[in-house]
Amino acid sequence: MEGTQTNMKLVAALQEALAENRVTTNQTLLAQHSSDESYHTPHLPDIVVFPESADEVSATVKLAKTYDVPVVPYGYGSSLEANVIPQQGGIVIDFANMNEILEVRENDFLVKVQPGVTRSQLEKELKKYGLFFTVDPGADATLGGMAATNASGTTSVKYGIMRDNVRDLEVVLADGSIIHTGSMAAKSSSGYNLNGLFVGSEGTLGCFTELTLKVIGIPEHIMAARAEFHSVDDAVDAVIAIMQAGIPIARVELVDEEAIKQMNEYSETDYHEAPTLFLELHGNEAGLKNDVDFMEEIVSDMNCRQIEFETDTAGRNKLWEARHNAAYAFIHNHPGRKQMVTDVCVPISELAGAVKDARIAISESGLAGGIVGHVGDGNYHILLMLDPENPDDIARANQLNERIVSYALERGGTCTGEHGVGTGKQKYQEREHGEARHVMRKIKQALDPDDMLNPGKIIE
Amino acid sequence: MEGTQTNMKLVAALQEALAENRVTTNQTLLAQHSSDESYHTPHLPDIVVFPESADEVSATVKLAKTYDVPVVPYGYGSSLEANVIPQQGGIVIDFANMNEILEVRENDFLVKVQPGVTRSQLEKELKKYGLFFTVDPGADATLGGMAATNASGTTSVKYGIMRDNVRDLEVVLADGSIIHTGSMAAKSSSGYNLNGLFVGSEGTLGCFTELTLKVIGIPEHIMAARAEFHSVDDAVDAVIAIMQAGIPIARVELVDEEAIKQMNEYSETDYHEAPTLFLELHGNEAGLKNDVDFMEEIVSDMNCRQIEFETDTAGRNKLWEARHNAAYAFIHNHPGRKQMVTDVCVPISELAGAVKDARIAISESGLAGGIVGHVGDGNYHILLMLDPENPDDIARANQLNERIVSYALERGGTCTGEHGVGTGKQKYQEREHGEARHVMRKIKQALDPDDMLNPGKIIE
Repeated sequence: MEGTQTNMKLVAALQEALAENRVTTNQTLLAQHSSDESYHTPHLPDIVVFPESADEVSATVKLAKTYDVPVVPYGYGSSLEANVIPQQGGIVIDFANMNEILEVRENDFLVKVQPGVTRSQLEKELKKYGLFFTVDPGADATLGGMAATNASGTTSVKYGIMRDNVRDLEVVLADGSIIHTGSMAAKSSSGYNLNGLFVGSEGTLGCFTELTLKVIGIPEHIMAARAEFHSVDDAVDAVIAIMQAGIPIARVELVDEEAIKQMNEYSETDYHEAPTLFLELHGNEAGLKNDVDFMEEIVSDMNCRQIEFETDTAGRNKLWEARHNAAYAFIHNHPGRKQMVTDVCVPISELAGAVKDARIAISESGLAGGIVGHVGDGNYHILLMLDPENPDDIARANQLNERIVSYALERGGTCTGEHGVGTGKQKYQEREHGEARHVMRKIKQALDPDDMLNPGKIIE
Repeated sequence: MEGTQTNMKLVAALQEALAENRVTTNQTLLAQHSSDESYHTPHLPDIVVFPESADEVSATVKLAKTYDVPVVPYGYGSSLEANVIPQQGGIVIDFANMNEILEVRENDFLVKVQPGVTRSQLEKELKKYGLFFTVDPGADATLGGMAATNASGTTSVKYGIMRDNVRDLEVVLADGSIIHTGSMAAKSSSGYNLNGLFVGSEGTLGCFTELTLKVIGIPEHIMAARAEFHSVDDAVDAVIAIMQAGIPIARVELVDEEAIKQMNEYSETDYHEAPTLFLELHGNEAGLKNDVDFMEEIVSDMNCRQIEFETDTAGRNKLWEARHNAAYAFIHNHPGRKQMVTDVCVPISELAGAVKDARIAISESGLAGGIVGHVGDGNYHILLMLDPENPDDIARANQLNERIVSYALERGGTCTGEHGVGTGKQKYQEREHGEARHVMRKIKQALDPDDMLNPGKIIE
């Protein structure tokens, strides 16, 4: 942003277009919008705005264009690859005031929400209708943010990722025009698939102002389980065997020994400190029993040392809360440290080798860390703790990340399964996408010729 | 194409790049590549080529650029909206010689195929591994063609559409460069989602030369059923009730009275001439029994007059063959006529009204026609028979199509659920997509600036 005077003029124009108290340059608020939940270096925006409608977002984008400043959409700030850090300053659009659940169309299994609605807020509302939204990334992110990074998580092995569950987006483009990317139809072959293109575009192609999401009925019966193994290898082999047996598993999460240890300390659980699978099955009563019996047989063949089932809601909730808190447990138990989370996804046949290599990589880094992962998709994370002030720590962490990503890319995998590119995964884009990067760049140039929307992210 | 001499030079250059016998201007072959399976007016290409590798496709596209002629990729010619008709002449690339199944990665639930592989060819090969590819559009189309139109069909209610089942495409772009749109990972948040963009692009953004597809294990148990109803309304209400009960139905097809009549005549079945649902459930034995009992209860509440189950493979095959032949039955029983197939998809809550209106529209058109549909997705087709030489017939058919599409678009639906835009659905693009058309046009211009790839399709 060039000069204070331009900034003051832009602030005044934004206040005119929105409302005085929803445009701020307050230092505390700027600082709150300077970072995400990762180890990446924060950067202050110049202005934060809190629009209340698509028209206000459009007005903001148009003013940003007039004043030639970047625009960065912001949900809850739970991104992990600097996706929402305004690295070139400019205007952060915080969707906190656009947090209404607009319509539940229960007969169509659809819900329309504003982008600032959080996952837990939506879950609470849908429960009234016997419905649930399947994507569960762990963090209580906003739906707009989840769509922007194409989030997924524990249930994606059965129900798919954000991209599979977005039917329509209302999007404000770089020129301020407002489009819809889809419809309420369950499928379509009309026009180019803009839904899928905008999901995962991390604010670089437009700002989402409304989302139409697919929801499903809460399963008739749910069974959760915790299976302890002697080794990570055995646990991963069990996952592959369960998948190959065609058991329609709804969740299958790996938590290694070190992560269980941190989890026990933080969540006051007393799980045996061993590589563990957290599992869940959904279905009708008879089918579920059949699946559970089959699964028990398979894990016992794979040297499972113990399997415990949780059928009641309280037990299940406790189990999944502990799993979701794994990352926070590491952070809580390592005060002053920041967390780097790797996020590769490999073809399932490469998973056992990848996790074994990851364990060696952690040891060799000399840093504290554990492995958790949505292993049914071949997606796993290393939770690595580092001192952000210590260049040596950062170098070791980067080296580990590099190794993990290389391992995945050499085997047909991806550098990011669910956290997105931001700036953290930019250096791997050429290796992963090759010539296809030029196509991505052309699309960015066509839709945002002034490179105004979250500049410097995904596309360099 | 300007002048015979240019054409001869281009033919010679193509023969040099490919092989003499795989570049043709033979009139019979040109005629064979001038039409699809629809009522749309044929148009001759100037040249047909049969490449055997991505490099040969790239060479063809580069020569087309040099000589400034269009390129139209061609699979089996089973499209229904003129998607493959070379309306501006030029080169048709027929993928008949690129029909190899390259790799079955059974542990990864992936298969790599060339674009000319047909659905039945793939099914036969996968059966050896206990696997199946879920997308079943009815026609024995090529996988390349199915990806190009984002085909779906009877099983999409459970397993998704082509877009959901393509992991990676090798694509030759307008400049002859070769890219990959995805990877072998089950999910990714890396870069823009080119997979989804190219699927459904109908050859307007590039030519597919290899596809990596998701496959699944053949279900442990399969149960098919035929349920007869007193009215189409009752049948549709039953579908909605089954969906709302959370029964994970794998197929649910509506066939109306008129279509059953044609089917009986053609397939030598003796089904009662009544609105009928063809259903299928997949699962383990106990779960399936539970689902079947529940479903039987629901359809009986919905005035089902009779339900018959088929558990053995022969019975199931007969049932689905009859269903798949519904469109051909109309064609066979109306010699000299052509078929127009409508293809809208509506939110499920609008389905009963839409089908009722469709029945009235057929009556009012005065043309012979029936209704079939993938009603679990809200997608249904009118199979309408017309005399292509009779302008009055064509006017009536167009009027009916217009009415059906308007009905769907006014209710948040789409003008094409699975057949694509081609030229047939172009006039509805503005109404369906509004401002978003400009985004589609910008993408087309960015990736095919000379408008060389299947020009005149999707984007005007």
